[in-house]
Amino acid sequence: MVEILTFRAERLREFSSRVFQHFGVPRHEAELAAEVLSAADLRGIDSHGVARLHTYFDMLELGRINPRPKPSIVRQTASTATVNGDNGLGLVVGPWANELAMEKAAAVGSGWVSVCNTNHYGIAGYYPLKALERDLIGWSMTNSTKLVAPLWGAERMLGTNPIAIAFPGLEEPPIVIDLATPAVAYGKIEIAKRKGQAIPHGWAIDRDGQVTTDPQGMIDGGALLPLGSDREHGGHKGYALGMMVDVLVAVLSGANWGPFTPPFALRQEIPARSVGKGIGHFFGAMQIAGFIDPTEFKRQIDDLIRTFRATKPAPGTNGPLIPGDPERDAERERSTHGIPLVLPVVEDLRDIAKRTGIPLE
Amino acid sequence: MVEILTFRAERLREFSSRVFQHFGVPRHEAELAAEVLSAADLRGIDSHGVARLHTYFDMLELGRINPRPKPSIVRQTASTATVNGDNGLGLVVGPWANELAMEKAAAVGSGWVSVCNTNHYGIAGYYPLKALERDLIGWSMTNSTKLVAPLWGAERMLGTNPIAIAFPGLEEPPIVIDLATPAVAYGKIEIAKRKGQAIPHGWAIDRDGQVTTDPQGMIDGGALLPLGSDREHGGHKGYALGMMVDVLVAVLSGANWGPFTPPFALRQEIPARSVGKGIGHFFGAMQIAGFIDPTEFKRQIDDLIRTFRATKPAPGTNGPLIPGDPERDAERERSTHGIPLVLPVVEDLRDIAKRTGIPLE
Repeated sequence: MVEILTFRAERLREFSSRVFQHFGVPRHEAELAAEVLSAADLRGIDSHGVARLHTYFDMLELGRINPRPKPSIVRQTASTATVNGDNGLGLVVGPWANELAMEKAAAVGSGWVSVCNTNHYGIAGYYPLKALERDLIGWSMTNSTKLVAPLWGAERMLGTNPIAIAFPGLEEPPIVIDLATPAVAYGKIEIAKRKGQAIPHGWAIDRDGQVTTDPQGMIDGGALLPLGSDREHGGHKGYALGMMVDVLVAVLSGANWGPFTPPFALRQEIPARSVGKGIGHFFGAMQIAGFIDPTEFKRQIDDLIRTFRATKPAPGTNGPLIPGDPERDAERERSTHGIPLVLPVVEDLRDIAKRTGIPLE
Repeated sequence: MVEILTFRAERLREFSSRVFQHFGVPRHEAELAAEVLSAADLRGIDSHGVARLHTYFDMLELGRINPRPKPSIVRQTASTATVNGDNGLGLVVGPWANELAMEKAAAVGSGWVSVCNTNHYGIAGYYPLKALERDLIGWSMTNSTKLVAPLWGAERMLGTNPIAIAFPGLEEPPIVIDLATPAVAYGKIEIAKRKGQAIPHGWAIDRDGQVTTDPQGMIDGGALLPLGSDREHGGHKGYALGMMVDVLVAVLSGANWGPFTPPFALRQEIPARSVGKGIGHFFGAMQIAGFIDPTEFKRQIDDLIRTFRATKPAPGTNGPLIPGDPERDAERERSTHGIPLVLPVVEDLRDIAKRTGIPLE
């Protein structure tokens, strides 16, 4: 039985913002960073919201993240740019670079921005949602600490490297795609461990590279498997998608890639060498009007959404969802009833409150 | 025992080109179309090479494809465009639109072109390979006749909707990613059927939406499953990727999407309604120099390739491949020793030879 405490989203956002400000993050940027974290909590991506605040706290306290970064454009063309994030919070550098992509899209139809020297940027899906507000199709990708094995590999070589993109409807809510490239999130391994349950075949390997159903086997030096799991089910495709993300976010920007991506949590192993600066992100924005009348586009998206909802359901299901449905349901529920946090997360926040003097409750 | 006959690639290319010209395709365009087909044969993607020539033949003979299209730009910005392919061969319209994306990239850093009113364009990977020749990162996607169920759906709603992208190395050969979004290619279902073998759990459902291990169960009104197969293994992610491709290639261009994508082969069912023009493609091209010094980029790609090749191998394997390895191996082998064709494909080509008077052998 896990104890759950519920907090109003506004309360957590205010707390996060004040914690960032405590370390010298300027108020506007602290509020922005707190908004990105809050988007994760509201949308039900619990692993990427305030549950991570203590890690940001640790990194800021140790001086590993620059609280007052001055992001700069290293190189650019009319529709592309590379940004150096000055080792700031990804929650601040990400929105800055996404804004640059959107401005380029407004000017020349599309904008593509690769970012080095940055840190974790929250949920990938936050950024395309901002693009939707301007009738842009937004893309977002990032890398992260190694956790995933390439197909036929027996060790961690890639981060969970998500891909996000969103498309607006007219009367229907938008299609919001936000997917990590392994078969399953690391959080699900931890949940299985906590519950003492086996994990399905196809999620993970142990330290010897053998497929394991024991969550502890993955945690102790094993790895997640890429989307598709094994060769027979397309594991080479999930691996290729993870590598694609790594190249666009890190090789293109001059950040660290693959197994050299720096760790986010303090206890994680330091990579064998450095091949660039920080982690990397990649943002894209395209004017819908650069291709088609936006109203016509949205009308077709409505039609597509309704068509897919009307698919004949598989036995025992209510039929297909539209990407973004579960997160939208969570947002509706949590905006009204608050954000449920498990006790260990609340204890982390209480620890921050005690050490900073910022009241949590 | 399947009878195999081997043909020199140049012979097949010449034959294909003459077949296209027989129907009035201008010589230069016929040669280009034959080159795209030949790329599939050389790279070992047998389903997308001359094995499809009879279908192109049928469509041209029935007047369903325009042999002398005049593709036009319907709408554009400096970095984006929508092209109407004038119902031409995708093998001709695709290279035309890809060229436009590359020209825009040369001018403003990147180019993004969505295409409607087109037909099958061969292998997705052909287009990024052309971009590599100009130090561009090329992207390519297309939709196709419905064959894949959405997760929790019991019917075909999406094509195999591939995504391709390529990155150049300096001393190492390029990373070439070309993946379809279902768990497995339809061709593997046909091979299992021919051999009288069961198919693995996770590849397909039957007409009732039940997972099946009988290839005939999929063929008779069943569907392929998306990459990830089921909810537990990330089937919602493969489904989302397939839908992403459909939106970029078809909703954005004004082509048919989802279950309304017109069939390529004659015996396939005609969609219930039309929601646009033809099928759709999407091409992207980005200047590497728009982000980073291209030599530095390629040096890092070399490092990344060597790092991933040095991954500790999973038991019973030689370790991870780099995306593009199998196709490159096939190309080396087949450039020297010829293209192996199964007898039914050769019989199709002989039928075309007989009906057009163009010598095959």
